[in-house]
Amino acid sequence: MRILGIDPGLATLGYGVIEANGSRLKLVEAGAVITTPDLTTPERLCAIRRDITALLNRFQPDQIAFEELFFAKNITTGMTVSAARGVTVCTCAEYTTKLYEYTPMQIKQAVVGYGKADKHQIQEMVRMILGLEKIIRPDDAADAVAAAITHANTGMMREQFRMK
Amino acid sequence: MRILGIDPGLATLGYGVIEANGSRLKLVEAGAVITTPDLTTPERLCAIRRDITALLNRFQPDQIAFEELFFAKNITTGMTVSAARGVTVCTCAEYTTKLYEYTPMQIKQAVVGYGKADKHQIQEMVRMILGLEKIIRPDDAADAVAAAITHANTGMMREQFRMK
Repeated sequence: MRILGIDPGLATLGYGVIEANGSRLKLVEAGAVITTPDLTTPERLCAIRRDITALLNRFQPDQIAFEELFFAKNITTGMTVSAARGVTVCTCAEYTTKLYEYTPMQIKQAVVGYGKADKHQIQEMVRMILGLEKIIRPDDAADAVAAAITHANTGMMREQFRMK
Repeated sequence: MRILGIDPGLATLGYGVIEANGSRLKLVEAGAVITTPDLTTPERLCAIRRDITALLNRFQPDQIAFEELFFAKNITTGMTVSAARGVTVCTCAEYTTKLYEYTPMQIKQAVVGYGKADKHQIQEMVRMILGLEKIIRPDDAADAVAAAITHANTGMMREQFRMK
């Protein structure tokens, strides 16, 4: 079972692909889709769609796990990130119906065993779970891998995590 | 010059196509793309992309004018509407780079001559400008046509209204 984890964003979208064989998890690739502010928003959204399509074709994941967005702070940032997330979800939904999502707290709980774990604890646990020498960079890629691990360990086939 | 006006939304997305011949404006068609809550959000986003693609193919607009989104109220609604808007902008951006946007106040100013005009005044002016017998329904379709009229009357070719 191959799982693509996604941490949505406009400037930096983290992704991570893992292979789940029973309880054995292996990292296939992690990275980030970057769009820069010298492009217009429509151009950035097109670039994200293009890059996500390329990832789906390249890795052919069976299921896709998203980290859910939460906003409190800046509503304008929230709107552009939501727009990028919409494009990402739509592109993935054309590829498969097997889309799931997890809150940051569910991810922390699943990966570290503690819903208020900090960024460093998550990155370190992700490193250990996958047997890597170094923590995954950038942060968004590590977050995406954490979403994929959460799905492998707690969510696979569970309808309650299916994106609504 | 054929202009497509769009009032973005997840449940109801208004659209209106007008033909601008010098200062003469003619309505080609107005309507709404509807998605219902019995679909999941990924399905609704896919449906919007499909319907927008069909509109672009059918009407072949030269330029596209969006009504800008503003939120104060509910952040969750804001996020889903922003997601739908992102999908719509991305789909349109793959078709043309000639995307423009106008705030509700700019639209009221351009259509009624008064930035705080109410919904009814706008609908009535849209009806008169286009020489229609009845006002356009639903509201979102009328708003989309108003955005297209604004673009025809004030924005065409003006880089300051280009979507950033």
